[in-house]
Amino acid sequence: MFTTPQPSGTRPDTRLYERRESAVRSYARAMPRQFNRAEGVWMHDDQGGRYLDFLSGCSTLNYGHNHPILKQALLDYVAADGIAHGLDLHTDAKHDFLDTFERVILKPRGMDHRVMFTGPTGTNAVEAAIKLARKVTGRQMVIAFTNGFHGMTLGALACTGNATKRGGAGVPLSHVAHEPYDGYYGPDVDTADLLEQRLSDPSSGLDAPAAILVETVQGEGGLNAASPEWLRRIAGIARAHGALLIVDDIQAGCGRTGSFFSFEDMGFTPDIVTLAKSLSGMGLPFALTLLRPELDQWLPGEHNGTFRGNNHAFVTATAALRHFWQDDRFAGDVQRRGDLLASRLQRMADRYGFETRGRGMMRGINVGSGELASQVTAACFDAGLIIETSGAHDEVIKVLAPLVIDDAVLSHGLDMLEARLGEAMRADHAIAAE
Amino acid sequence: MFTTPQPSGTRPDTRLYERRESAVRSYARAMPRQFNRAEGVWMHDDQGGRYLDFLSGCSTLNYGHNHPILKQALLDYVAADGIAHGLDLHTDAKHDFLDTFERVILKPRGMDHRVMFTGPTGTNAVEAAIKLARKVTGRQMVIAFTNGFHGMTLGALACTGNATKRGGAGVPLSHVAHEPYDGYYGPDVDTADLLEQRLSDPSSGLDAPAAILVETVQGEGGLNAASPEWLRRIAGIARAHGALLIVDDIQAGCGRTGSFFSFEDMGFTPDIVTLAKSLSGMGLPFALTLLRPELDQWLPGEHNGTFRGNNHAFVTATAALRHFWQDDRFAGDVQRRGDLLASRLQRMADRYGFETRGRGMMRGINVGSGELASQVTAACFDAGLIIETSGAHDEVIKVLAPLVIDDAVLSHGLDMLEARLGEAMRADHAIAAE
Amino acid sequence: MFTTPQPSGTRPDTRLYERRESAVRSYARAMPRQFNRAEGVWMHDDQGGRYLDFLSGCSTLNYGHNHPILKQALLDYVAADGIAHGLDLHTDAKHDFLDTFERVILKPRGMDHRVMFTGPTGTNAVEAAIKLARKVTGRQMVIAFTNGFHGMTLGALACTGNATKRGGAGVPLSHVAHEPYDGYYGPDVDTADLLEQRLSDPSSGLDAPAAILVETVQGEGGLNAASPEWLRRIAGIARAHGALLIVDDIQAGCGRTGSFFSFEDMGFTPDIVTLAKSLSGMGLPFALTLLRPELDQWLPGEHNGTFRGNNHAFVTATAALRHFWQDDRFAGDVQRRGDLLASRLQRMADRYGFETRGRGMMRGINVGSGELASQVTAACFDAGLIIETSGAHDEVIKVLAPLVIDDAVLSHGLDMLEARLGEAMRADHAIAAE
Amino acid sequence: MFTTPQPSGTRPDTRLYERRESAVRSYARAMPRQFNRAEGVWMHDDQGGRYLDFLSGCSTLNYGHNHPILKQALLDYVAADGIAHGLDLHTDAKHDFLDTFERVILKPRGMDHRVMFTGPTGTNAVEAAIKLARKVTGRQMVIAFTNGFHGMTLGALACTGNATKRGGAGVPLSHVAHEPYDGYYGPDVDTADLLEQRLSDPSSGLDAPAAILVETVQGEGGLNAASPEWLRRIAGIARAHGALLIVDDIQAGCGRTGSFFSFEDMGFTPDIVTLAKSLSGMGLPFALTLLRPELDQWLPGEHNGTFRGNNHAFVTATAALRHFWQDDRFAGDVQRRGDLLASRLQRMADRYGFETRGRGMMRGINVGSGELASQVTAACFDAGLIIETSGAHDEVIKVLAPLVIDDAVLSHGLDMLEARLGEAMRADHAIAAE
Repeated sequence: MFTTPQPSGTRPDTRLYERRESAVRSYARAMPRQFNRAEGVWMHDDQGGRYLDFLSGCSTLNYGHNHPILKQALLDYVAADGIAHGLDLHTDAKHDFLDTFERVILKPRGMDHRVMFTGPTGTNAVEAAIKLARKVTGRQMVIAFTNGFHGMTLGALACTGNATKRGGAGVPLSHVAHEPYDGYYGPDVDTADLLEQRLSDPSSGLDAPAAILVETVQGEGGLNAASPEWLRRIAGIARAHGALLIVDDIQAGCGRTGSFFSFEDMGFTPDIVTLAKSLSGMGLPFALTLLRPELDQWLPGEHNGTFRGNNHAFVTATAALRHFWQDDRFAGDVQRRGDLLASRLQRMADRYGFETRGRGMMRGINVGSGELASQVTAACFDAGLIIETSGAHDEVIKVLAPLVIDDAVLSHGLDMLEARLGEAMRADHAIAAE
Repeated sequence: MFTTPQPSGTRPDTRLYERRESAVRSYARAMPRQFNRAEGVWMHDDQGGRYLDFLSGCSTLNYGHNHPILKQALLDYVAADGIAHGLDLHTDAKHDFLDTFERVILKPRGMDHRVMFTGPTGTNAVEAAIKLARKVTGRQMVIAFTNGFHGMTLGALACTGNATKRGGAGVPLSHVAHEPYDGYYGPDVDTADLLEQRLSDPSSGLDAPAAILVETVQGEGGLNAASPEWLRRIAGIARAHGALLIVDDIQAGCGRTGSFFSFEDMGFTPDIVTLAKSLSGMGLPFALTLLRPELDQWLPGEHNGTFRGNNHAFVTATAALRHFWQDDRFAGDVQRRGDLLASRLQRMADRYGFETRGRGMMRGINVGSGELASQVTAACFDAGLIIETSGAHDEVIKVLAPLVIDDAVLSHGLDMLEARLGEAMRADHAIAAE
Repeated sequence: MFTTPQPSGTRPDTRLYERRESAVRSYARAMPRQFNRAEGVWMHDDQGGRYLDFLSGCSTLNYGHNHPILKQALLDYVAADGIAHGLDLHTDAKHDFLDTFERVILKPRGMDHRVMFTGPTGTNAVEAAIKLARKVTGRQMVIAFTNGFHGMTLGALACTGNATKRGGAGVPLSHVAHEPYDGYYGPDVDTADLLEQRLSDPSSGLDAPAAILVETVQGEGGLNAASPEWLRRIAGIARAHGALLIVDDIQAGCGRTGSFFSFEDMGFTPDIVTLAKSLSGMGLPFALTLLRPELDQWLPGEHNGTFRGNNHAFVTATAALRHFWQDDRFAGDVQRRGDLLASRLQRMADRYGFETRGRGMMRGINVGSGELASQVTAACFDAGLIIETSGAHDEVIKVLAPLVIDDAVLSHGLDMLEARLGEAMRADHAIAAE
Repeated sequence: MFTTPQPSGTRPDTRLYERRESAVRSYARAMPRQFNRAEGVWMHDDQGGRYLDFLSGCSTLNYGHNHPILKQALLDYVAADGIAHGLDLHTDAKHDFLDTFERVILKPRGMDHRVMFTGPTGTNAVEAAIKLARKVTGRQMVIAFTNGFHGMTLGALACTGNATKRGGAGVPLSHVAHEPYDGYYGPDVDTADLLEQRLSDPSSGLDAPAAILVETVQGEGGLNAASPEWLRRIAGIARAHGALLIVDDIQAGCGRTGSFFSFEDMGFTPDIVTLAKSLSGMGLPFALTLLRPELDQWLPGEHNGTFRGNNHAFVTATAALRHFWQDDRFAGDVQRRGDLLASRLQRMADRYGFETRGRGMMRGINVGSGELASQVTAACFDAGLIIETSGAHDEVIKVLAPLVIDDAVLSHGLDMLEARLGEAMRADHAIAAE
């Protein structure tokens, strides 16, 4: 199954993009190839180059590219003139998805949440979540966290911490307070205590919150993983202060941390959960907001969206649920691969005095500077490994390999990373020694 | 080709939906069937019923369901393991789309706009548009119009007029002023004059705008069509006051009014244009924001989104552009059908003293009350015709048939509408006479 | 009693002000004298110059400067160690004011309003009014009008129309919509109809308002006087749409239009009224918010302020109420003087094709340009007449003489104005003829 | 000079107030007497009762009631028909104030600040300060602190921490972040470090601030006194991050802490300072915003207000500056009295295990519960001592005696407080023992 990546090394003619595509494009700048085909963990460019994908569409391709079972389900559906676009009409594809999601995901986990089909992007699901929390509680303030990332539309962007992204709004971002995430002030400060103190103080200036919006692992914010204890505290604080707990599981959910939801077995159930990215299983746009039944106070059509019935995504999502989540085997595989990933990253970190970050198959290594991190990821790309950085200063090299990756291929990719990191460290040392 | 619709008349088992799907669903309530297949202008339910589609996914299916050419392009692409999800990486599919869009759409219309791939929903494209306008101008206020509809995320929702939708926000919607649309105060008041007066008055309380955001035909707001003169005035006012002109062409664009953009041949070019709905041609999620090159002041990644590289949509969109827009034939067909639609609706309106609304293949009949309108559309559905209402009070019966509809089928559908409207009017008359 | 003004013509040494006082100062720039004494309608500078005051502290000195009865009441109170500052404690001075205000003002007018002592500036009274309206209605939007002026603190400033003042906020001004005032779109457009249409349209984008905030005569906005019919319409619209009617009577109240409140005998009673400026009668800081008893839903201390118990102002205000408002004589005098003022201004306007503005003793003449208006007022000042401009472009010469002015002195001041206006017009004509 | 207070014990007829004054009144509820006269440290009610004033109008009467020198200056000025109300015109009274303030206050302290005469309430001065900071920096966010109090108008209220006061706004309070004040998280957490970390982190969600707004002692927030080291850190952080430092010295300034400004000799000079309360010296409404000359970027009239020229206050303020601040004697007296106050409060605190708070003559004792605190202050009032509480839970008994109080009288008042506190503690103990 496995062969070494062979990148093409040939930069495509980018004049069309420069002339016609907005300057807002970003990944294409660091990975200047034109890709044309992908299967499993591999991407191919139009010059015959092949790349191992440790980015997985930012965790959108947890089952790899064009997984054969999902692909076949989609081909069959399209060939049979299945409904592609159905607004929010009932369709066979939606029925199957709902039924499967209930049976395979919700019931075994004791969750009775309703499923809200929002516009098929993560930011739309977050917007729906915070709208509902404000509507139901009659409060306006949402608590989000330092380094949190929740999307680019105005409501979700207000919950996002990144200053550059925030600056794009052009208007002040209101009705959200950013509180320190787990570990933000170092290991000696319990930031749940700080939040509890502020919310209990009628003179703290922090208005009573409609919701607390949290990621269990901050994918864009540097792969910071909150401890189960801290998350449980936050869940308790939300309940005690009349706020809803929203877990944004868009990046960490769908198996990335080793279970379908990233908060399983932690002793609490969120009031609202947002899902997107790997939900369709094949990278098709699909997002959901899950809500406790008693919170489902929407009026018909009060929140809508043209593409909330992307039936192609329903089909592949259903196939993915059936194939991967009917029993524990896949989750077990992911956990084993996560452990392998953890130990390999730890070994690299120990060698150079760095720190590892993350949980499950969502891990990285903080190399201390964005410059070094991007030097390493660029060298990896030249060697045929697609890998990216994360964090406030892009200082964390993050590994988001497909969850279906063969252990040997994972190891091989990590060998490449380790080699490139070593070269970069030696080069740094050489420069420092001059 | 043509046969009469045969609705199944059998309501599906909806317990799954009631138990598991959020109460926010809406179309499924008025059309309680479970659909399983569609091609061209026809939708089929799982009981064997067949329906003529005069809704077209709210103008998302301008080329009908599963158009064979688009469908084949998608099947081929998926079968060949084409990239499904590419973030904003260069891919063959994106290259072909950009190249085709430039060649077939932009160049022939003398437009040099850059293409920004936003998250694949209309509201994301609108958010990107107003963010950019605010960023570029350094101003914060956006002028939108009465009865305008622009989306459900917080920035776009602030531009939307509908009180129920706005109420869902749970926070005040700021930085937007709603000014009267063309004809809002009746035929004797030129609302462009009113806007010009307010913007020229340093004491009017209307802050200098970053942008004027306008639909040429208000799809959700009641199919109000602005006159070319008024739109030209608005364009001039925007320019004179240092604001950008954004045309939200999400519903009216992609041929719905008879030309690719709804503002063609009106003597002005918008600074920014948003597209979505029928852009992919097959109902797949896809949205774009077009911007004059000098406005492309985005930093890399300043606005992003997981699904901004929905390559399946690029493939079908490219096929649609090539098939329908390389010459004038399709546009001519749409215009002819639009004229047919206009004359038929006008005849109905004249009979009962109603008014018609709209432009091209985006037309309706204002029957004066939402109750009557929904009575007619419900009767149509029972007869096998999918048709919806629009307007502040849902008082406009709107016809959004696929643009590819055969003239005879269009006539037949309108016959059905005319018959049901007549029945409803007679019933009303009978009640009034008692 | 009357002698001609004798301005000193000597500019004071302004180095102290330039060095030490903020550049925000304004009146002192157009009237560069140092004043040291004033009584009745006269102000004196420290060089012996004497000026007739047609500005009256922007209607703060309706009873003239240092009215002997008010002055004596204050001297007696201070000499007897009366409470100067009492927070909101009960004092004899407050008791007498409340008792007199109830007996002399409220009861005869059939008003049962509660008296809220806010911080002693008009803007504080407006802030209290809109806070209460939002609190009571649970709504957030306030409707204010084009050219309205309501103060400089953030809540009141959002209600103010002037772009320069608004620009000083440094943040967007939210939760307020500015609608067209009476006559804003010319005599043929009834702007009450426009407002009614927008509020009745669930898709107009205008959120349900907490309050409609209106001046009966716009003092800063150009002396626009709303008709009683229009104000009655606005009162009815507020009631019909669940909004509170707030009349900001800070400049037009306290007799300026010929009755104590500017809205008397118009057939409606506001829910909330703000008063300030001439309330103390002697120019001392004092402001009130009057509210219907059923609206008095404040918690103790929910809105407070250090100087809400300015007892010196209570004393002079009480003396003024007793001296001027126990019977109709003073009101009759003001009306007579207002008629005199009206006919004189009309004569000037007719001569040059200008328009007059205003009501009662709050009138002006729109000379079409701020340049001409300030040329005339500067010439008046050089001749010993203090007079200012108003309006969006400062194009209205406004006469705000003390209400107690002797008819002959008023006539004499108007002679001066007429002469200077004539000179300016001849100069213009001469220039134009060259 | 000294005699024991003799409260009247007679409650006035309050029907007038209940019928006519808004329910928002607060102090009058806890001190149900009608006062009619006051001199020095004494207030008298209309039943012949006499009260020692340990509230001083919340630090507005630092020089006591009706100080004879200030009172005479005012009487002379009024008797001579001095200008009472002068908008922002130059007057002799304003000239003398500016000249004296420059000579006696600014120059000896090496301050070159410009003086901005705002509306004469503290909240207006704060609004002007934050408007200017936003205008000058082009940023919108202001950092305020937990338990801070800055006023009731919308801009200042957003900076205030108290939830009840904030709730009165009826709209969300935006563009302000409340950060933890010195000591907020206990003695082991340096909250300046926390602020520095968040401002240095581009992903913290805390937008770049226009200003940091701080009280050196939080008068309403519980008499929390920040350490000079912490304040110096905050000043440094503001500078480092391009924010202006605004010290709100409305309650702590004018000598209350032992020097004219509360921040003297701390090694930093604020960019902007707000003053009000005791500025006029006699309780008359007066407020100022001081600003570094390079920040004086106001346009003429960009921020204005009717009563910004309260000349009576200029007269008494000038007399106070001349009498109290020309040399160090008064400051020395205040410091000595502050030490006396400190040692007495510490003795009480030590006895019962309580904590003292504050600095200079602005001190209190935290008795742990608002119930106990109000029980003690009520008993004090019954004995003839006017004293109030402070803090998030009203748990701090605060002593704000006039600064001019005779040491023996101060001691006598503290004896009364100590006795009442002892009684309350014994009663508590007795109840607990039952």
